[in-house]
Amino acid sequence: MRTQPNIAIVGATGAVGRECLAILEQRRFPHGVLRALASARSAGSTVNDRGTPRPVEELGQRSFEGIDLAFFAAGADTARAFAPCAVAAGAVVIDKSSAHRADPACPLVIPEINGDLLTPLRARPGVVAVPNCSTIVLLLPLDPLHRAFGIERIVVSTYQAASGAGAAAMAELEEQTRTVLGGGRAEPRVFKEPCAFNVFSHDSAIDGATGSNGEEAKMASETRRIWRDASVRVNATCVRVGVLRGHTESITVTLRRTATEAQVRAALAAGRAIRVLDDRAGNRFPTPLRATGGDEVLVGRVRPDDTQPNGLGYNLLVSGDQLRIGASLTAVKIAERLLGV
Amino acid sequence: MRTQPNIAIVGATGAVGRECLAILEQRRFPHGVLRALASARSAGSTVNDRGTPRPVEELGQRSFEGIDLAFFAAGADTARAFAPCAVAAGAVVIDKSSAHRADPACPLVIPEINGDLLTPLRARPGVVAVPNCSTIVLLLPLDPLHRAFGIERIVVSTYQAASGAGAAAMAELEEQTRTVLGGGRAEPRVFKEPCAFNVFSHDSAIDGATGSNGEEAKMASETRRIWRDASVRVNATCVRVGVLRGHTESITVTLRRTATEAQVRAALAAGRAIRVLDDRAGNRFPTPLRATGGDEVLVGRVRPDDTQPNGLGYNLLVSGDQLRIGASLTAVKIAERLLGV
Repeated sequence: MRTQPNIAIVGATGAVGRECLAILEQRRFPHGVLRALASARSAGSTVNDRGTPRPVEELGQRSFEGIDLAFFAAGADTARAFAPCAVAAGAVVIDKSSAHRADPACPLVIPEINGDLLTPLRARPGVVAVPNCSTIVLLLPLDPLHRAFGIERIVVSTYQAASGAGAAAMAELEEQTRTVLGGGRAEPRVFKEPCAFNVFSHDSAIDGATGSNGEEAKMASETRRIWRDASVRVNATCVRVGVLRGHTESITVTLRRTATEAQVRAALAAGRAIRVLDDRAGNRFPTPLRATGGDEVLVGRVRPDDTQPNGLGYNLLVSGDQLRIGASLTAVKIAERLLGV
Repeated sequence: MRTQPNIAIVGATGAVGRECLAILEQRRFPHGVLRALASARSAGSTVNDRGTPRPVEELGQRSFEGIDLAFFAAGADTARAFAPCAVAAGAVVIDKSSAHRADPACPLVIPEINGDLLTPLRARPGVVAVPNCSTIVLLLPLDPLHRAFGIERIVVSTYQAASGAGAAAMAELEEQTRTVLGGGRAEPRVFKEPCAFNVFSHDSAIDGATGSNGEEAKMASETRRIWRDASVRVNATCVRVGVLRGHTESITVTLRRTATEAQVRAALAAGRAIRVLDDRAGNRFPTPLRATGGDEVLVGRVRPDDTQPNGLGYNLLVSGDQLRIGASLTAVKIAERLLGV
């Protein structure tokens, strides 16, 4: 790939797409042409490309001519329909949707964890899949523990922000909250449940056989794929909360080898793209507001789970910016790896 | 105790006290005199007693003369200072605070679970302790499973409403949300963390030795005491969310004896003060908004935890009105038991 690749952003006007543009600028990502693509509805508007308004073009089969690198910040249907066009045009696709995550031909990558998978892709077109945002916020803090002690089982309950369902969901949370404060009644449109002053089971479809929803199933299957370990067991419960953009997760792990709390803390302190915030005296721990805008998953409430055999069970509470770490930043870091910058 | 006891409500102007008054009226609780007591700050205001405004008197050592039954809907310091006065005056105290929960002389009661403890108290003054709201919302749904299959271990993450910290915290959530929507900055006063559009570790103090906060420790110790089973293990993570008054809990249990999902469902369907709401096709499950104002803990997302041995692990998501079920309603049900109504 050329050192200043021509890039396209599919879904440039959405929450993830806009964040992607901001991160490319912040990180001074070297690129030539930048093509902002979106559905017909958004075509004609503009997005900000390093201070210059860039017109948004309608996404089509011929949108990828001359493009080296295409960020897909759109839904799975769009990715399934148009990623093949981008690859046919010679581009590497970095897909934030779930479309390619289970495809053995497409590496599923968190750069800090399994970025080594990217090397063979540098030279040729193909699709790299970005994991689900909840999986990224889960695995960045757990990876140092997995490397040091092995993780056998994860029980996780999520507190997921509206941003995971896109810009319209964030707007719905704000509007609905205004309505409720004014004495009105919340009228859900994006979500099925009211999101103002509420908490509800994640809106993805439930598998009738297992009772798990799609988000929970993703967290389990993606964890096994990213860690290349079919034996790790994940029991997830995914819940949305009235938060704009940070995902929080309450995690209980079972290690394969015993560790002291000091050893767990030392492993976390050396972890990549995470930061321990664990002020017990001041009761200051990770929150979605504190994580918003940051490039690290915050990790706190580090403590033994004394209901498990001594030294094997630990609890963590983590928060990460869903739009950055859970999506755009991870995609841009993948691109940086591919470029070798 | 006389069949129409004279009653006092300590903390009558707080969130739990007001709810207590509403529930006494709804349930047509038979009583003679009703004395509304509060701190000097609230004395002189009125509360609603079955449609009649009732003046609020300042709480003092002599407030309990002639009182048969005193509901303490105040903090632990107030309960420690004044419950002895009420008992000395001949009253039975029903204390919603944490002051007497660990005292072996004071039964800790959820009427549907261990209401049998109340009988000996009918005739003589003393204190009955009401469990922590999170414990009540946890144990009402789990008790039928504990009776049928035995519960060995509980892993629970909570989504707790502002109401658990009182009326001032609920007002803070509303005011702060208004400020943030208007472009302003949240200024925490009741809580240490912003509560608008946020999630944060429960504000109770952290034990330096275990790393658990007070709320988490209560959930574990109260569960063992209420079930009279020192072997049950509870690993709780308590978190506040921007919800006004319903507590939600994501629960994973380990049973002592295997059960099929159908057997678990049958046990839950026969449970007391709970209602199963588990519409997988429609994605309709318990939420705090749906639980608000209700007299039952809603139970859903019933599904096996396939990371545990077959038939031993199950997940539940539950929501209950913190002010009613978690406090006032349980206190009034205890009073009804004592009266035999």
